[in-house]
Parts: sequence; C-alpha cells; structure tokens
Amino acid sequence: MKIAEYRVTPIAFSDPPLRAASGLHAPYALRTIVEVVSDDGISGVGETHGGAAALADLEAVRDLVIGRDPFQLAALEQAIWPNVGGGSESADITRVVGGLRWPPRTFGAIEVACLDLIGKAIGRPVVDLLGGRVRERVDFSAYLFYKHRGAGGCFGFERDPAAVPGWPTALQHEALDAEGLVEQAQAMVAAFGFQSLKLKAGVLEPDEELRTIQLLREAFGPGVPLRIDPNAAWSVETSLRYARELEGLLEYYEDPTDGKQGMAEVARHTSLPLATNMCCVSFADLPETIRLGSVRIILSDHHYWGGLRASVELARVCRSWGIGMSMHSNSHLGISLAAMTHLAAAVPNLTYACDTHYPWQQEEIIAGGKLQFEDGSLAVPKGAGLGVELDRDALARMHEQYLACGLARRDDEIEMQKVEPGWAYRRPRW
Amino acid sequence: MKIAEYRVTPIAFSDPPLRAASGLHAPYALRTIVEVVSDDGISGVGETHGGAAALADLEAVRDLVIGRDPFQLAALEQAIWPNVGGGSESADITRVVGGLRWPPRTFGAIEVACLDLIGKAIGRPVVDLLGGRVRERVDFSAYLFYKHRGAGGCFGFERDPAAVPGWPTALQHEALDAEGLVEQAQAMVAAFGFQSLKLKAGVLEPDEELRTIQLLREAFGPGVPLRIDPNAAWSVETSLRYARELEGLLEYYEDPTDGKQGMAEVARHTSLPLATNMCCVSFADLPETIRLGSVRIILSDHHYWGGLRASVELARVCRSWGIGMSMHSNSHLGISLAAMTHLAAAVPNLTYACDTHYPWQQEEIIAGGKLQFEDGSLAVPKGAGLGVELDRDALARMHEQYLACGLARRDDEIEMQKVEPGWAYRRPRW
Repeated sequence: MKIAEYRVTPIAFSDPPLRAASGLHAPYALRTIVEVVSDDGISGVGETHGGAAALADLEAVRDLVIGRDPFQLAALEQAIWPNVGGGSESADITRVVGGLRWPPRTFGAIEVACLDLIGKAIGRPVVDLLGGRVRERVDFSAYLFYKHRGAGGCFGFERDPAAVPGWPTALQHEALDAEGLVEQAQAMVAAFGFQSLKLKAGVLEPDEELRTIQLLREAFGPGVPLRIDPNAAWSVETSLRYARELEGLLEYYEDPTDGKQGMAEVARHTSLPLATNMCCVSFADLPETIRLGSVRIILSDHHYWGGLRASVELARVCRSWGIGMSMHSNSHLGISLAAMTHLAAAVPNLTYACDTHYPWQQEEIIAGGKLQFEDGSLAVPKGAGLGVELDRDALARMHEQYLACGLARRDDEIEMQKVEPGWAYRRPRW
Repeated sequence: MKIAEYRVTPIAFSDPPLRAASGLHAPYALRTIVEVVSDDGISGVGETHGGAAALADLEAVRDLVIGRDPFQLAALEQAIWPNVGGGSESADITRVVGGLRWPPRTFGAIEVACLDLIGKAIGRPVVDLLGGRVRERVDFSAYLFYKHRGAGGCFGFERDPAAVPGWPTALQHEALDAEGLVEQAQAMVAAFGFQSLKLKAGVLEPDEELRTIQLLREAFGPGVPLRIDPNAAWSVETSLRYARELEGLLEYYEDPTDGKQGMAEVARHTSLPLATNMCCVSFADLPETIRLGSVRIILSDHHYWGGLRASVELARVCRSWGIGMSMHSNSHLGISLAAMTHLAAAVPNLTYACDTHYPWQQEEIIAGGKLQFEDGSLAVPKGAGLGVELDRDALARMHEQYLACGLARRDDEIEMQKVEPGWAYRRPRW
C-alpha cells in the first residue's frame, strides 16, 4: 500500500469573539485539513493548525509523503525534521499556533491521516492502533471564555442558534465579567452536560477572574472541578498571591505564569497542582520541566506533540514520573475532536476531562453534523479509522472562506486592537 | 476478533556452560512459549523467560486473555498488574530472570504474541505495528563468555558442530583466560561476522578481564567496538580503578557496579559512557536513574520492560533525555530474536549493536532452522507478524526436556557449586 494522493487544504470557519491573554479571536479560525489516499483508493484525513506556516510545512514535505507506505511513520517522522523549518525542538506554543514552522505538528497531522487510512484499510478504529480502549467514553470540560457579543464569522452578531442543534443562545452573549461567565457556564453545562469547568483567564483584572471562580463555585458547588488558565499573563508574585485565594477552589492551576523556572517557583509555594500546555510543549521540554518540578499535570495535544503515537509515548513518561495528564485544545472541528477522543480512550492515565473549543464552533467539516456530547462526554466514534468522513461541500466552502477572510495566521493582538486601539500583548500583564 | 485459545508451554534447551558473575549456566536454559489463537484460527507466538515463576504468572492471567480482542492491549496491561505478583514496579533483574514474579514480563510476552497475531491477521510484519522500519537490517554484537568445555545439555561435552550450520567448533572449547576468550571471539566473528564485541565479565580476577579486553583490542584493532559487562561484580572503587585502564578501549562500560547510586558515583569520575540493564529495568526506575545521572546508555529488553510497544516508548524517553539505547539479551531462541529484530528495526535511536545469546544455542524452535546473521546483522524476517513459525515437534521435544531436566528456575549459583563446591554469589565480589 502506497500513498498515491496527498491533499492539504487550508480552511477558515466562523469563530466567536473569544478573549484570551493574547487578545481576541478573529472572526474566523484557521485550520488545515490533510488527506492521504492510498493507491487502492482508501483515504485518511487529519486536521491541524491553520494559516500560512502550517500550510507551507505540510506542502514542503509532499515528496516525503507521496509513494510512502502509510505504516512507515517512524521513517517519515525522521525525514520531516530536516525538511521543515523550526530548528529547536522546544518552542513558544503561542508562536507555533500563531505562525511558527514546527516539525512535530507537520508530522502529527500526516500521522493522524495515515492512522485513519490504516484503520480504514484494516477495518479497525484508530484507538485500536494506539493499544486499544481503556474507556468507552471520554470526558470533556466546559471551556469558558470572556467574550464579546456575537457568534463570529459568517454568523456576525445575530444568529439563530436553532440552526445548530444544541448551540445555546447564551453563547452569543457578551461575557466580560464574572456574572456573564457564570451565565455562559450554565448555558454550556445545560447544553452539553460538562462536569468540569475551565476558565480561560489572563483577560480581566485578576480580582475579577478570582471573583469569577468564586461565583462559579457558588453556582456549581464543590462537586464540579474548576480550572483557571491565565495563559502566563501573571507574574510569579501575582500567581502566588492568587494561588492563596484559589487554594481549595481549583482542580488545577494552569499556566498562571511564564516559563519552566517561573512555574517551578510558583509550584514551590502553593499546594495547588500546576498544569501546563505552555512551558512544556515537546519532548525536548521534558527534562528541564521534570528536573525543576515545574508542573504536576501536562496537557497533551497531539497536534503539536507529534501525533497520536507520540502522545501515547508522552503518557508513558507522565506515568513513569507521576505527572498527571489532561488534554489541550485550540479552535477545532470534528476531525480533531474524533482524533482527540480516540487518543484519550487509549491512554489509561489521561484521567482529567479534556479541553475542547468544539462547543464554540457552529460550522462542521464532517459529514452528518457535529459530534454530540452526552453528560459532557463523547463516545469513541464508531467505524473504522477515525470514524468520521469529510463533508466535501463543507471543505470547499471553508476553503473559500479561508481565501476570502484574508487571514494568514492567528494574531489575537491585531484583532484586539480593532476593539481597543493601542492594545498590546504583554506577558506577564499583571 | 477474539482470542479463543491461549497456550503457555515451558521449555528447556541445551545451553553451554557459560560463566557470569552469578555463577554458571545450567546445562539447560529455560524459556516459555506463549501462543494465542483467534476465533478465526490465526495464531500468534511469543517467547519469554522460563521456569516456574514466569509460567505461574502467565497461567494466572489466562482468564484475562481468553475472549479478549488482541488489539486491546492497554486494557490487558492494566488488568495484569493486580493479577500477577511482584508488587513494586522496580526490581533486581537477576531476581526477575531467576524467579521473581513480574507483571511487565507477563504482559510483554502476551503482547508479542498478540502483535504477531495482529500482523498475521492484517498481513503486515510486526515492525509495521511499531511505526515501521527505520532500518532494513539490525546489527548484533558478539557476546563473549568465559566458559567451561562443552556445548551443554543434550549435547554434553562432545558434539559435532557440523550438525548446526555455522556453529563453530571453538564454541565448545574451554575459555577461562584472556587467550581462550580471544580464540572464542575470532571463531564467533568468523562464523557470524559480528562487528562489535561484548565481554561478559565479573567472572575472573579483574586484572585478567582487563587483559582480555586489551588482547581483544590487539587482535581486532580499534575499529571493532568493545564492551565489558561485569554484572555489578565490582565495587565502586574497583570500577573506577579499572575505568582508568579501560578508557580509550571501550564503547561503553556496562554495569561495572551495583545500583543507581553506585553507577552514578562511577559515572562522575570517568569519561567512559556507563550503560545498564541492571540498575534501570523498568519505567519506575527511570526518574531516579535520570536524576542521578547513573548511565548514558540503557539496554532495552522487551521481555521485561513490558513488550515491544513499551520498548518504543522507552526509546522516546531515551531520545528526549539524550540517553543512548542498546539491547539486552538472555539465553533465547528464534522467536525472541525475531521480536528483537522487528523492534530494533523500528527504533531510530537504537544505534548500538544489540546483544544476543543466540549463537550459543544449537537447538531451535522455529521452523526452517536458525535465523542467519550476515556480517553480524540480521534482516527483519519476511512475512506477516514476526515472520517465524513454531516448529511443533521442536516445541514438544523442548517441553519434554523441561519436564526431564528438573530445573524450575535459573540458578547459576547452584550450577557453579557443582564445579566449585562452596562457591557463593557475592555482589560485589571485587
């Protein structure tokens, strides 16, 4: 079996005006769809980060993919490194998503497509290519954002949520204070059944974000785990000041401050478990992260750790060193969600509910509409491979949107400046 | 697909009177053959440590295996732990081989059989289930032993080596000094083409073992990498004294002394790269080994690290921390050799020539006779799964030998006492 066709399609889909420490989500989120088709006509699909840099990397390795047996993944991984820019194995993940070229992402996207292809060729779900399932359903957490009014992109500010089953009206509302966030959380929990809540922080004054956590606790009670993720917007001192307020309230404290050293300094002075998807984003980051004791939980992400098999390998590292595992997400569609679910179903120690931006997206690229959460969890999709199929009309439409929207990379700072002239991304801000 | 049959067969095969720090090999080496057969009649095979403890563990998990889909390996691994004695994840590997019950070994043996079955079911070699091949051939090293005269077991002291193609007469000779070892090395290199040499040490006075290394260097020149493995028979002081003599002569210095602390102490005072298959034999050992800087090279062994996939995961750890990888061996037959070769072909950073006892064995359990080295390397066996088939007559004969030989566990000390009454295993001895 050889890969006879390799297609890389940049897409854009409507994204609500969500806030983060880095600024504001643009009206469209960018993604890239990778397809491989074998010489006997079986196809596999993957989804990864969007924009020009991801696209350029995926195009740069075309000759390494075409003609390759899809099972020969280790050799492809080796071959990709010298062919894709990026250099160091460690990087600032905000730059990776924003535009840095990055070999593990490139390999990971193709690996997922190859595993989908292999699964379809042998009549097995992808989870079975990762060691099989240790759970039938995967828990996700509600991903709460401070946000401006509207649904984003082609939906603008007024959108009939009834058009997307389960999309709650409240997700269109502005949520720029603690009360707004609680309303959002209640709508999201009501619609999707999530049983843990993550607050994307580093956006408002820390006092208001602390008040948000306190209000969420009041509204949902101690049975619903809470997480806060200031995305390194806080200094070590600020992180420690709020750690004292947050102790007893949080399941984990995600990236309050920047860097392995800063996180380790915070970790030394709080009982809160620290988590990261920022200071440890590659295998090259592990030795120093572990040596310093920067975190007790790593948020895996197959999109930048180098694919699904690499994520299983990361899980072994975490198990060996007693580090907890959760899962990170960027704005994504159903192909990524399916891959995340297959992966999480295969990893015994992925015991925290996974992040997902999926409820924020109304558009979908897989046939049959959006995957449906029940009680905040998702069943492993049935069928061979990832268990999802590309909706080609949706792919074409989202590719048109990519060409029309004029965005080549995620830049939350520029978007933020449109609503607040002169705004600048600073880390730390507080 | 379900596993409908599960067969565990203890075997014994003739083993020459090889010496090690632990004593003397018995006339028969013990192994266990694991077979799984699917409900549609496809079978898979694995080989692991022998004797009563390995057998008891493999029998204890029978109910976990029967009825299981062979792809569901992570769940099997989880389930095996509470069902197999052993407790701690870390152990003295000489006790594991000698008789300790040990969950990762149990899982690993079944995992190999399942991967063989899966490979046969989907028409793919096992290497393709591990990420595919990064090399077509796998290099092995000559494994040199001080030894007594004879070929062992049913071959006794006089055996026509012509009956086994490529088995050199000199391997029957006594080799209890440096000159004898060099003769053995020359015979083994002539017969199998090995391009690196490993001396099993910790047997004679360290001065004589040093002289052996020096004579090997004289005989083979600096182009042939040399290793010495005293199996922790030396104190830290002795290890350091001989390190000074061995610098410039060795590719690596394997387990001169005992324990992570002792190895780290040696490592701090020599430029020789230290290697181990004794102080780091499980994932639970990795954190302290790495923290202390005990070694620069780990000898993997899928038989006790928990199978082939676990070994790929170990390789990722080694890559991430800049630790070199080699491969350990115990006395084994062709099923293990095939599995070792598939694994080594899939692991980019397994760059050292692998250990193997295989040339010491004249009996074989795979159909078609022994696998053939060329220039010291082995091609990945062709065909689906492991690419080897059980010789059922040989299996039956070796099972009879197991029952007849009266050995239930490897005990080199008792064997040694037969040639040297009162001999006792001490660690360190020098």
